[in-house]
Order: sequence, then structure tokens, then C-alpha cells
Amino acid sequence: MSDLLWPGDERAGDLFTDAAVCAAMVRVEAAWLAALVLHGVAAPDARDDLDGLIGPGDVATVAAGAESGGNPLIPLLKLLRKRLEARNPAAASWLHRGLTSQDVVDTGLVLCLRDAADRIGDDLAAQAAVLARLAEEHRDTPMAGRTLTQHAVPITFGLKAAGWLTGVLDARDRLAAVSDLPLQVGGAAGSLAAPVALAGSPAVVGDLVETTAETLGLPVRDPWHTARAPLTGLADAFVTCTDAWGRIANDVLVSARPEIHELSEGAVAGRGGSSAMPNKQNPVLSVLVKRAALAAPFLAATVHAGAAAAVDERPDGGWHVEWATLRTLARRTVTAGSQTAELLAGLQVETAWMTANLTAARPGIDAEQRSINPGAASGEPYPGATDRIIDAAIARAKEHR
Amino acid sequence: MSDLLWPGDERAGDLFTDAAVCAAMVRVEAAWLAALVLHGVAAPDARDDLDGLIGPGDVATVAAGAESGGNPLIPLLKLLRKRLEARNPAAASWLHRGLTSQDVVDTGLVLCLRDAADRIGDDLAAQAAVLARLAEEHRDTPMAGRTLTQHAVPITFGLKAAGWLTGVLDARDRLAAVSDLPLQVGGAAGSLAAPVALAGSPAVVGDLVETTAETLGLPVRDPWHTARAPLTGLADAFVTCTDAWGRIANDVLVSARPEIHELSEGAVAGRGGSSAMPNKQNPVLSVLVKRAALAAPFLAATVHAGAAAAVDERPDGGWHVEWATLRTLARRTVTAGSQTAELLAGLQVETAWMTANLTAARPGIDAEQRSINPGAASGEPYPGATDRIIDAAIARAKEHR
Amino acid sequence: MSDLLWPGDERAGDLFTDAAVCAAMVRVEAAWLAALVLHGVAAPDARDDLDGLIGPGDVATVAAGAESGGNPLIPLLKLLRKRLEARNPAAASWLHRGLTSQDVVDTGLVLCLRDAADRIGDDLAAQAAVLARLAEEHRDTPMAGRTLTQHAVPITFGLKAAGWLTGVLDARDRLAAVSDLPLQVGGAAGSLAAPVALAGSPAVVGDLVETTAETLGLPVRDPWHTARAPLTGLADAFVTCTDAWGRIANDVLVSARPEIHELSEGAVAGRGGSSAMPNKQNPVLSVLVKRAALAAPFLAATVHAGAAAAVDERPDGGWHVEWATLRTLARRTVTAGSQTAELLAGLQVETAWMTANLTAARPGIDAEQRSINPGAASGEPYPGATDRIIDAAIARAKEHR
Amino acid sequence: MSDLLWPGDERAGDLFTDAAVCAAMVRVEAAWLAALVLHGVAAPDARDDLDGLIGPGDVATVAAGAESGGNPLIPLLKLLRKRLEARNPAAASWLHRGLTSQDVVDTGLVLCLRDAADRIGDDLAAQAAVLARLAEEHRDTPMAGRTLTQHAVPITFGLKAAGWLTGVLDARDRLAAVSDLPLQVGGAAGSLAAPVALAGSPAVVGDLVETTAETLGLPVRDPWHTARAPLTGLADAFVTCTDAWGRIANDVLVSARPEIHELSEGAVAGRGGSSAMPNKQNPVLSVLVKRAALAAPFLAATVHAGAAAAVDERPDGGWHVEWATLRTLARRTVTAGSQTAELLAGLQVETAWMTANLTAARPGIDAEQRSINPGAASGEPYPGATDRIIDAAIARAKEHR
Repeated sequence: MSDLLWPGDERAGDLFTDAAVCAAMVRVEAAWLAALVLHGVAAPDARDDLDGLIGPGDVATVAAGAESGGNPLIPLLKLLRKRLEARNPAAASWLHRGLTSQDVVDTGLVLCLRDAADRIGDDLAAQAAVLARLAEEHRDTPMAGRTLTQHAVPITFGLKAAGWLTGVLDARDRLAAVSDLPLQVGGAAGSLAAPVALAGSPAVVGDLVETTAETLGLPVRDPWHTARAPLTGLADAFVTCTDAWGRIANDVLVSARPEIHELSEGAVAGRGGSSAMPNKQNPVLSVLVKRAALAAPFLAATVHAGAAAAVDERPDGGWHVEWATLRTLARRTVTAGSQTAELLAGLQVETAWMTANLTAARPGIDAEQRSINPGAASGEPYPGATDRIIDAAIARAKEHR
Repeated sequence: MSDLLWPGDERAGDLFTDAAVCAAMVRVEAAWLAALVLHGVAAPDARDDLDGLIGPGDVATVAAGAESGGNPLIPLLKLLRKRLEARNPAAASWLHRGLTSQDVVDTGLVLCLRDAADRIGDDLAAQAAVLARLAEEHRDTPMAGRTLTQHAVPITFGLKAAGWLTGVLDARDRLAAVSDLPLQVGGAAGSLAAPVALAGSPAVVGDLVETTAETLGLPVRDPWHTARAPLTGLADAFVTCTDAWGRIANDVLVSARPEIHELSEGAVAGRGGSSAMPNKQNPVLSVLVKRAALAAPFLAATVHAGAAAAVDERPDGGWHVEWATLRTLARRTVTAGSQTAELLAGLQVETAWMTANLTAARPGIDAEQRSINPGAASGEPYPGATDRIIDAAIARAKEHR
Repeated sequence: MSDLLWPGDERAGDLFTDAAVCAAMVRVEAAWLAALVLHGVAAPDARDDLDGLIGPGDVATVAAGAESGGNPLIPLLKLLRKRLEARNPAAASWLHRGLTSQDVVDTGLVLCLRDAADRIGDDLAAQAAVLARLAEEHRDTPMAGRTLTQHAVPITFGLKAAGWLTGVLDARDRLAAVSDLPLQVGGAAGSLAAPVALAGSPAVVGDLVETTAETLGLPVRDPWHTARAPLTGLADAFVTCTDAWGRIANDVLVSARPEIHELSEGAVAGRGGSSAMPNKQNPVLSVLVKRAALAAPFLAATVHAGAAAAVDERPDGGWHVEWATLRTLARRTVTAGSQTAELLAGLQVETAWMTANLTAARPGIDAEQRSINPGAASGEPYPGATDRIIDAAIARAKEHR
Repeated sequence: MSDLLWPGDERAGDLFTDAAVCAAMVRVEAAWLAALVLHGVAAPDARDDLDGLIGPGDVATVAAGAESGGNPLIPLLKLLRKRLEARNPAAASWLHRGLTSQDVVDTGLVLCLRDAADRIGDDLAAQAAVLARLAEEHRDTPMAGRTLTQHAVPITFGLKAAGWLTGVLDARDRLAAVSDLPLQVGGAAGSLAAPVALAGSPAVVGDLVETTAETLGLPVRDPWHTARAPLTGLADAFVTCTDAWGRIANDVLVSARPEIHELSEGAVAGRGGSSAMPNKQNPVLSVLVKRAALAAPFLAATVHAGAAAAVDERPDGGWHVEWATLRTLARRTVTAGSQTAELLAGLQVETAWMTANLTAARPGIDAEQRSINPGAASGEPYPGATDRIIDAAIARAKEHR
């Protein structure tokens, strides 16, 4: 999958494509069907792994059929049932029994979101490793610290890298805290009425749900049809990622300005060129990451707006707005995470320019130091707790890996 | 094109698809090339309509190549030039000369946005016609007026329809006021330096721009690389549309509740069914329209955030965030407009329920009337200026058609 | 009024304060009462200008009483009626008759918004005048043009100023197109039922509305209780302003970086200082304007979300979310407009630094020029249509004044 | 404090008012000064608790002075220092030494946010207790379950209350996970350079920070000037609260419609009345809560946008946009939390209407049940796992109290 108007989107590969969503929903139906058979609710001949029934070629049909019922599971199920009928009528008759559309759509989304979160987690780890290295390497590389765009006091690039790292680790921890998205099984109105009627008792339904969750590798949770904090929490975590990356991109974009020249993106053949100006080497990755950071808050807020619009036992629009929004947010976060990882891995640190800019900033930039220690020689170190801050950030980066 | 996670998206058909964007950018290049030839800047043998060089099969390649330069025009141009080289080297050497990527991307987006705006304009007109008819027909159909969810005073359904119509006409007028999006031709930094250097004088460049604009049917405007009000204005107009439609959908959703039952969506075979509950007839179109209305404000706001992030002679992310956002907003607005038009065309007005609910609301709902005219009989008309308001709305609906 | 956490807020003075809103609502009631008397609906002894009944000291009481009824008019009216009772019982009995709370709240907001829009319009005009002067003065002041943060081709600062001016003029025109906010008079459910019952005929109500509108200087419009495009349009225009100003602030912030140094904010005693670093001169106005531009899209989007949540004849929350949001947006826009006007009036253009940076950017920045004209000497002008673009922008600035 | 245009705002009392923010910043300065003395960095005669130096009467002055330096600490500090000078010159000379404005502003905000989060936590607990009671009491109270506005299957009101409770508990847990906001002490550029220069070693600065944190009751954290996840996390948690409350309000608003009548707000003298229609009893609390839920996602997203705009060692606008936004979000969340607690405490459950609506929904609403068990009598229970779900929710409510 690619998106002409969101350059870099192909980095997200097949994550959360229409085909991936279809496949995830089929997995959910298959896991439930298997549980029905395993626990003796359905007869043994209803066993079917649903493999090979739905393929990428069906996606357009399913998508086109989604409007009638208001969600994509209904046409998918119709197609699945029709094809299953031919090879396994018993399975066809048990397919989806006890579930409601939302169970399958929500759990299918959860599977896709989990895959995206895993990819993002990997990229966060990669970024953290690079940043820990940069912080270590440039622990003593002097540069001008800036506040409100103006020279403040000298810092080191290692300290700046540690600051970036803090943002990345915050995002990592936030993501880890919310990425364990649960299964959704609740039946038509969240009471599990149909499953219990089919299975004979809440206890057996408990088993069905446990088995299904285990098959899919998801935690169990009581129905959350209209309590959407699991999804808003993940959306918020995605934005926490793009916030951290946007902050890095902003620094690179400023530092890559020719007059400042302290950082530049690694040269890659063909990247950053201009159609008309061969002299230019645009910091394209940073530009694209900043773009994602601009957009992401609005996407997560949309997921919240959907959650806040929940009503009844299944909402009349608040639910429907989540799906595409979460996909867009997830794919863009994956893309930006990959771009940031590459950006950091290739980052060129122009220490000579850092020194030159710092030197040019003197003596003004030393004013604070001299106000405390009037006898300080120009250029005398003014490190504060830089070493300790860097050490702590590096230690934190290693914590979870 | 379809979108599994945005049911109904196929209503927007080929509008603004990747292929449509590519085709639009090629049209821009072709129009400029033709202008160069027409005004003698390029030699006559550089004439080429660029037809048949780029097809839907190239879209994925172009998309995948977009990250390197940060925008989709660069890889498209490379492909175009390579193929043109084979059939018309003179044209290949003149292709794109004087333009910058942003000129072509912006104007390509403008062409796609115009097509979307046209479609939306048609649907607004269709909606207005239906609403004018409903307002006329139900001018005297009594129903309960409600405020803050509670019975207020009696109104007629015609008055309500006139209120919906007002929203639709406001959207129509807002859209009309901003949909005349301009051409973008500015060269590398908006000074038209390269075109003038090529053409020899600003005057000839003026001719080039005029001709290009005429070919594409777009108004001329001085470079607006970092002054994005044309795009934010259209985005705002799109949201003004979804606001108006969302307001209608909200009313239908409330009125379609079984206990109220005053309105229902027209029955369409297969639509609104539930996968497990054959008794249900969900107001699917209203649900999907409400969904669009929930999401749209965030999309237009993203376009504004991009505009507000503009810097230099071409922004470092603020520009890039516009493209996909505008596309999503445009396609969703088209989809919601089509759904609303269909919803209104098929709307079932249950006058008996309106009467029954109003009767049940008595005498409470008559309190205001009796406070003014204590001798009013229950059920005595309390029309106010309903006729005049309806007449005015209907007249306004006819103004532009 | 001031806001500790929104530095500069006091620039908006008394615009849209709680007291101003109260006063505006009283004006609406007074205008309607006067119309009732003028047209003989109320007896002549009901004449009362309502002056002196409500003062700033009442605001807290009214605010505290607003929750019970869900809007501030109800407690205000209660207080007003009680005090009027004492001095003019006839007026007290006619006060507010025929109106509904929303009529007075909406029209009161409209009056406050109009005042804010007027102030913003004045500041846009002042900005346009300064920018026209800057464009004229620096028509030939060479500097580096930049795209995606990198040197592109030489431009002049006059061209950049003309680009800023375009944004300001777009905002001016957008604001002018939507700032003619209308009166709201609709009665309980928008049918004008109570006014007609009181006045005896729609025609007399037409007169009442005309007179009230004339007194308040507002255009007449049929009830728009749930068709909120007038308000969303103004909110959109406010954001169009902050977009334009944010874009200017971004340029100043980049250019004010010590390494670039092409622009700086005018020195004002005490402004921009740091609590610990006397060397610093922070570009405070630009920082604060950028802040406003970051926030504004979300505020206007909230107004749209409220509009899209409209339902029934008066919404159950969608209406209520507008008030404070519009006030915040209006005051911040006024503040940012004033800050931008001051920023531009004091802007220091460091032409020597512009030249130095441009020189340092050579020969790279001349690449495009040399690709067209290989024999161009370094530094040879490359103006394109700069003069024409500047002239056109200046001419447009003068159009409306 | 009250806000005429946000009815109910006075529920947030003095939380986060300008005066509260000033007092919090003074507390931060006092804690730091005390630490300097305690650890022997400052001489003993610099001890001063700063009490009585700044009062509510100074707020307007401080606010008006905030623009010059771009933040409110600078004028506050000036005033503080001037007054301290008179009573304790040693303290005046040590005041704020080693800190930067952002340290004090951030920590001051953190103190105010903590107070707000505490209040919200209390209201969440109160809501959870009421909801647990409602779920228990109405465990078997039958009502129609609804999806996409239409009747689905029978449920009980206890199940619905358990669903609401789930949302509230999710919000409680999210809030608890992020409300432990840290101290900010970093010095001019986050390296703690000045404190170390003053104190002589990073180790002593570690002690200073520990002591200050302990005095203020805040956790220590390395400088987070440009890594804003602590604040975005809390903002996200606030929205998670308003999402949960909005979802409840939506249900009440639908259920309070006269035709449905299953729930109503508790009658409170004077509340919910209409200025003209004595028959009306508006569900005002629900309306106001829904209003908050509409607005909150945009406010939290603004905080993210600010975080994503971070650059350098202190941002040029991204920081400044946080303050007022966080305050507005915090006060509105407090207000909505209090309103929701009151709404739930007084909620009237109209079981007779629930039964009547359910009866009227038969036999359609029994279709699913009969499709599983064709012999089921009409009205035969169809409880599913309702009891278990309710028990689990109630148990979870008790976990943390």
C-alpha cells in the first residue's frame, strides 16, 4: 500500500490495509468458531479454520457492501458464509453465532492496532538506542543552548540528545502502558445474551471468551462497546510518539538551516533533491516527520470525539468515526516512527559548526555563568549536571531492553 | 476506489484518487508546456499533449518515489520526462521549465478540489430542492417543537425542513464564495524568476500564466505558496456542509427512535439490516452522515494548522500536511453529501406519529400559547411566522438555480 | 480584564468580558422592548431604556445563576425584571415578552463578536499599511529565498513582505465577508409564534424585528437557532487571521535567530528580557503570536463541532459550547492582531545581514539562474516578476481604504 | 471565580485561578529558597517563607506585566523581589537564583493541575460509588437495549449502569496513572548549569532538587522543558474523563426525552426551568456535561500541538500555548466532574417507563432470543452474563477505595 499524498506511507507496508482488516476480522470469526467447537457448543463438524475463503481480491466487494449495514463486517460475513456453505455447511451455520458486528469489527481493529503498536515499539527502541549512543558520544560536544530562539547558555549536544531521548522514552512507556488492547465480545447489546443462550451458561461463555482471547493473543475484558478508553488511550499514545518525534524534527530543521548548519540529515542518493535546484539538499525526513506531528493531535482528538459521542448500547456515528481515523493515525505513526529512526541513524553532527556558532555567541552566551562566577574565563565549561542527566537517560533507555 | 473503514466512500468514485491526482498534475504540466510553445518561449517542436504517458499503473511507482524529494511531483516528473524523451525530446527538455514542484502539486490539488466542490455543489442543490418540497408539503404538518430535548411549543414539520434548508443554503453560499480556487505558478520562491528568465520578460510570463489558467479553467492569482487562505477557505466550506448535514442527521436519528418515530429513512433492500437482529432497520445513512460531521472539523482545522505553520518561501511540513488532509476531507464531504441527498430524497415523514406525540405533549406544550392567550383552545394553531419563514427559505433555494 | 496565563490578553480590553456580554444582552432586551412600544404592542408606559439596572457588580451573581437554567440570560433577566419592577412595572411586565433565551444570548454574542471583528479589522488595516510600506521600501533589498529550510533562489525582502501582505489581505477579505452577523429573533422554537401571538400578525412582528435590528445595527435574518453558519463563518475568519499572522511570526522567529539575524523585533524597554540572561532579547511578540496561531484552529473547530451537534429546535449542548469558545477565540484574535500590528510597526530589517547571508549562500543559490542563463554573473539580479507582484499587493491593500 | 459563558464554572472554585497560579509560583520560589538555605548554598539570613508578599490584589499587575517577558513569572518575580528587598535583602538577593522562568511556571502549573486532578479523582470516586449502587439496585430492571438508535435486545438498567461505570473506572485509572506530575528544575537550558555553579557540585544540586520536591510534595524528574509528555498525559486523562461523562450525559439526554422518559435529572428547585415555558424541565446538567465533552478533545489536542512544536531548549510558542489551555481544560473537567456526580446522585430511574417501552418493543426486540430458542415465551429473561458483568464492575469500583 502507498499513498501518493502522504509520502513515505509505504513504510507502513501492509499494516492496517483493507486486506489486513478483512483478514483480521476473519481471524476473529475463526477463533470464535473454534472456541464454539472446542467447548462443545457447536458440533465437531463445524470445525473450520476459514482459511482461503477471503482474499485480497474480495476487499473491494466487501468495502462496497459496507454502507448498507453501516459496517464492513456484514458484507464480509455474507461472503464468508456463502463460500463456507459450499465447503462446510455446519461451519457456515455456526459462523458468527453469538457475536455482534461490533465484536468482530472492534477485535479486528484491535489486531491491526496491535501490529502497528508493535512496529512503533520496535522503532522507538531503535531510536532510543541511537539516541543513547549520540548522548554518550556527544556528552562533551559544546554547542549553544537556545531558548525562545535566542542564545541562552552553552550546553552540549549530548544533553540535547538526552532531552530527545527523554521524549522518546516517555512515548515508549506511554505506548507500553496502553498497547495491551483487549478482545471485544459482548453480543448484540453487551450482555452476552446470545452467547449464553447458545452455550447454556455464563460459565461456558467465559470459557469461549477465554479461548478466543488466547487464540488471538489478546487480554479478556468485559464488553466495552461504549466505553472506548482502550482505543483513546492508544490514540493518545500514538500522538505522544509523534510529539516526541516532531520535537526532534523541529530541532533538526532549525539546525539544518545553512546559516546554523549544526545538524544535517544523512545523505541518501536521490533524497532531498529539488526538481530545479541541484544545490539543495532538503531535510526531507524531518519535514515529513514534522508534517505527521502537525496532523496527529487532530486524529487522536477525533477518536476522543467519537468516544464522547457514544450513546445507547452501540453508538449512532461515534463508533463509526473511529475506524478510518485509527487506521490513518496508526499508519502515519508507523511511517513517522520509521522515518525518525532513519533520520536519527543517519544524523550528521557538525561539531565544528556547533563550536563556531557557540564561539560567535560569546561573550553574550556566557553572561549567566559570569553573573555567578565573575572570574570565569570565556569558554570555561559550564556543564551543570549534564553528565548525570545523560547517564540517567541512557540508563532508562536500557531498562526495558 | 473504496475504503473498507469509511463505508460509503465509493460514492466519491474516482474523485481525488491517487490516479486522479497524477492525471491532474500531468494536465498542469501539459498546460504549461503548451503555453511555452504558444508564446514562443519553447520551440514549436516541443509541443506535446503528454497524453498516454502516465497511467493508473504508474501510480504506485510514483507514490513510492515521493518520499525522496518530499512530494509526488518529483518522481512523476522523472517518469514523465523519461517517457517523453523517447517520443519527443524537445518536449522533454522543455517540460516543467520555469515551474517548481509546488506549482504543480498545488494546481493539481486545486483541480481535484474543484471537481469535488462541483459534486458537492450539485448535491447541495439536490438537497435544497427536496427540502424546499418538504417545507412546502409539510407547511401545516403539526409536530412538537423541542429545545434541550424537551417539548417547547408546537411547530410544523415544514418549519423544521425550512430550518434544515437554511443550513444547506448557507453551506451552498459559503462553498460558492470560496470554490473558485486559483492557479499556482510562482517558480522556486514565488518570484517567477525562472519563468521570467526563460521568457524574457514579466509580460510574457503574464501571458504564459494567463494561457495556462485558461486551459485549466482556473482564475489567475499571484503566487500563494505560503498564503494558504484559498485552501483553508475551501476546507472551512466543506465543514460548513457537514455541519448542516450533521444537524439534519441528528434530527433524523432522534426522530427515528422507535418511541418517537416521526421520521425514518426510506427502505432500501438490504440496507440498515443487522447481522443478528432481523427486526432492526437502522438509520444507516444518518449514522454515516453524523460520523462525517464528527470528523470534519478536525480535518479542516488540520489544514489551518498547516497554513499557520507556513514559513520561508515554502514551508517545512506545513505544506505537506495539507495534501492528504484535503483529500480525505473532500472525499468524505462528497460521500456525506451524496448520502444526505439520498437520505432526504427517501425520507419518510410519519405525520400520524407527529400528531400523536404532539397530542401526548399537551397540555404542557401549549403553556406558552396560553400564557399569551389564556382562552386558546387546546390544539388551536400557534403558527407564528411559519408561512413567511418557509416562503423565504424556498425563495432563497430557488435563487441560484 | 487580563489573563495571567495568556500574556497580552489585556490588549483585548473590555471586549467580550462577562460585563460586556451582560451589557450586550441588556441592550438586546432594551431594543426589543422599545420596538414593542414603538409598534404599539406594548403600552407607552412600558417604555424604559433599562439603563443603570445592571452593572459590573452584578456579573458574578448572574454567572453563578447561569447553571440552573443552563444559560446566563435567565438569571440576568430575573435580576433585570426585579429591579425594573421597582421603577417601571409596565416595562417589567413587557420585558423579554416574545423572546426566548437563545434570541438574547445569540444576539448578545453577536454584538460582542462584532466589536471584536471591528477591532480586528482595524488591526488588519494597520498591518496592511505597514506591510505595503515594507514591500515598497524593500522592493530591491536582496535576501536568500528559502524552501524547506534551505537556500533556494535569491529574492527581495519586499517580495516576502508582499507575501505576508497577501495573507493579511486574504484574512481581511474573509473577515469582511462574514462579519455582518445577524440578529437572532425566533421565539421559543424559531417560529416566532409568541411574538406573532403578542403582536397580532406576522407583519407587525416583521416590523418589530426590523426596528430591533436597526436599533442594534444588525442585519435581519430568519431564525438561525440551529443553523450556525454565521458563527462558524466568523470563527473561520478569525483563524484565517491567526494563520496569516502565525506565518509572519514564523518568519520573524527564524530570521531573528542570531545566526540568521535578518529581522528583529523593535526594541521596547523591558520587553523580551530574560530573568537570568541579560544578553537575551527574545522576540516575544512573535512568540506570543505563534502561540495564538497554534491554538486558534482548535477553537474554531470546536465551534464547528457545536454546530454539527445541533438537534431539535435548540440543541442540548452544541449551542452551549459555542459561547465561551467564541469569546476565547475572539479575544485571542484581537490580542494577536494587536501584537502583530505592533510587531510589524517596529520590525527591524537587517539588510546587511540579508546581504551577508545571501553572499554566503553563493554560488549554490544561483544554480537555477545559471541553469537558465549560464553566463549570468554571480549576484546578477534575478527578479522575475517581483515588481509586478509587489505592485499588485500594494494596490490590493489600498482597495478598501 | 465564575464564567458567565461557561455555566457551572464556579464549581471549580479557586482552582487554577490567576491568584492560585501566582500563589503556586510563589510556593515554588519559597521551596527553592528554603532548599538553598537548608543546604548551605545561601546564607541562613536568606531564609524567608515569602508569605504575605503577594496577594490577590497583585494579580492584575502581574498579568499585565507578563507580555513583556512572555511569561507571568518575570513580573511576579520583580514584584516579589522588590517587596522582599524591604524586609529581607539577603533573601531578595537569593530569590530565584539558579532557576529559570520555565522552572517556576511549569512547577506552578503542576501544583495547580495536581489540585484539579485531586478534585476530579474525588468526583470519579463518588460517581463510581453511585454507579455501583445503581448497577446493583437495577441489576434486574428490564429495559430495551438499543443500537444505532433502534431496539436491539432487552437488557437491564443495571447493565447500562455497569457500562457507564466501566467508563468512569477507566478514566479513574488513566488519571491515576498520569497525575503524579513532576517538579521542573533545570535552569536556563535544562543542564542545571547555574544551580551547579552556585552550589558547587551536581550532588548538592541533587539535594536541592530533592528538598524542593519534598517540600512541594512532587516527584523529582530530570528537566523536561521540551519533553512534555507529563502534561499531555494529564490532558489526555482529563479528556478520558469527559468522554466517559459525555457518554453518560448522552444516554440521559436521550432517555429524558418525553417520549422515552426512562431517566430524568433529579428535580432541584429552580433548575432546568425555561424563561417562557413553565412546562419544561430541562436536563441541564446533562446538557452542560455534554457541552464539556464536545470541547475537551480540542483542548487536549492543543496541548499536544504545543508539545509537538517544541524546539531548542525552550520553545518559541509551543510552551506558551499550554498554560491557558491546561487551565481551561482542568477547570472544565472539574466542573463537568462535579456536575456528573450530582447528576448521577440525583438520577431518577423511571422503571415503569422502561418496562412500558420494552413491552412496546415486543415482539421485535425478542427476535434474536427466539432465533436461538424458538420456544422462548415473550418476556422470558434473556440475561446473558449480566450478573457477572455487573459484579465485576462493582468489584473493580471497590478496588482502589
